[in-house]
Amino acid sequence: MAESSGDATRIMVAVNESSIKGYPHASISSSGAFEWTLNKIVRDNASGFRLLFLHVQVPDEDGDSILLSRTLNLVQSAGQTMIHGFDDMDSIYASPEDFKGMKDRNRKRGLHLLEYFVNRCHEVGVSCEGWIKKGDPKEVICHEVKRIQPDILVVGCRGLGPFQRVFVGTVSEFCQKHAECPVITIKRKPREIPQDPVDD
Amino acid sequence: MAESSGDATRIMVAVNESSIKGYPHASISSSGAFEWTLNKIVRDNASGFRLLFLHVQVPDEDGDSILLSRTLNLVQSAGQTMIHGFDDMDSIYASPEDFKGMKDRNRKRGLHLLEYFVNRCHEVGVSCEGWIKKGDPKEVICHEVKRIQPDILVVGCRGLGPFQRVFVGTVSEFCQKHAECPVITIKRKPREIPQDPVDD
Repeated sequence: MAESSGDATRIMVAVNESSIKGYPHASISSSGAFEWTLNKIVRDNASGFRLLFLHVQVPDEDGDSILLSRTLNLVQSAGQTMIHGFDDMDSIYASPEDFKGMKDRNRKRGLHLLEYFVNRCHEVGVSCEGWIKKGDPKEVICHEVKRIQPDILVVGCRGLGPFQRVFVGTVSEFCQKHAECPVITIKRKPREIPQDPVDD
Repeated sequence: MAESSGDATRIMVAVNESSIKGYPHASISSSGAFEWTLNKIVRDNASGFRLLFLHVQVPDEDGDSILLSRTLNLVQSAGQTMIHGFDDMDSIYASPEDFKGMKDRNRKRGLHLLEYFVNRCHEVGVSCEGWIKKGDPKEVICHEVKRIQPDILVVGCRGLGPFQRVFVGTVSEFCQKHAECPVITIKRKPREIPQDPVDD
């Protein structure tokens, strides 16, 4: 092998929001994967690495175009203006402009999530960049790996109890098989696993 | 997370011999995984890492105790002194001492394999250690991970052609699921894949 070691090692880190705290809080898994990367790989060699943060927003949860069209149909058939299934239950969505506003808000929330990671990188002096994509996380992550060609992909994964050792989260397992670069899955430590599995 | 970054990151690298060249030559997969680790993770931060080389010898191929007892039974029942199924087909194994000699030879060959990796580490100034175990590689690797508790396990894996992208070698796939530490699987590059799949 004749690898060039002159350029920085580019590590893509897939990050997502906390499923209980929501935006802009990072999930325990992705912040854990990120801190592990800093502590165990980057260490004090900040100039040797560049971190690439990818946040994938799921259309069904974020009022994206797919949901928008489906929900508008629902409004028209039911004759109601109140839409269920969103975080913003205080708001009323009655026109396409309302949905556009929500899309913008979710985009901003995604940016605030990335801001957390970018700020941490600046604290330790490692160069980085972050971007947001919409779609199925596992598919988008693999597609972005193909497009960006990082040296390593780091994916956090929800923890494993004593009887769950065989289990590896769907996204990380899919990426390990399909991503066209070496993949590191960082499993949460037992002490970091919330009592309720949904509290990630 | 409050990881200590004071100690070196301990990277366990599973290494094996070339299946066509035999000892002491390293397989393309394991030497590729090792060089990748040096180039992409260790980089010029040699003092930040310690490499732990584990070589697992498979009893069925190496004249180990399990094979020895089974083979001796075969000799006794067949009344022959010529044993088939080994590399050393020129030799005649007629007594337990002959097998012991072969065991020692295989052990020495394994040490020569480790010597290659240890020498490379000394060239680049990264600290390391290596050891040999007998058994089923995937089981032994996971057992050693549990015992040694490295920060990362690096496993090479035979390459993937255009129609084999889903395939991940059994050992690496097993380790990804069962090893109790983050695992990096380094797939061979297409250009490194021999014409004959057995030539690894």
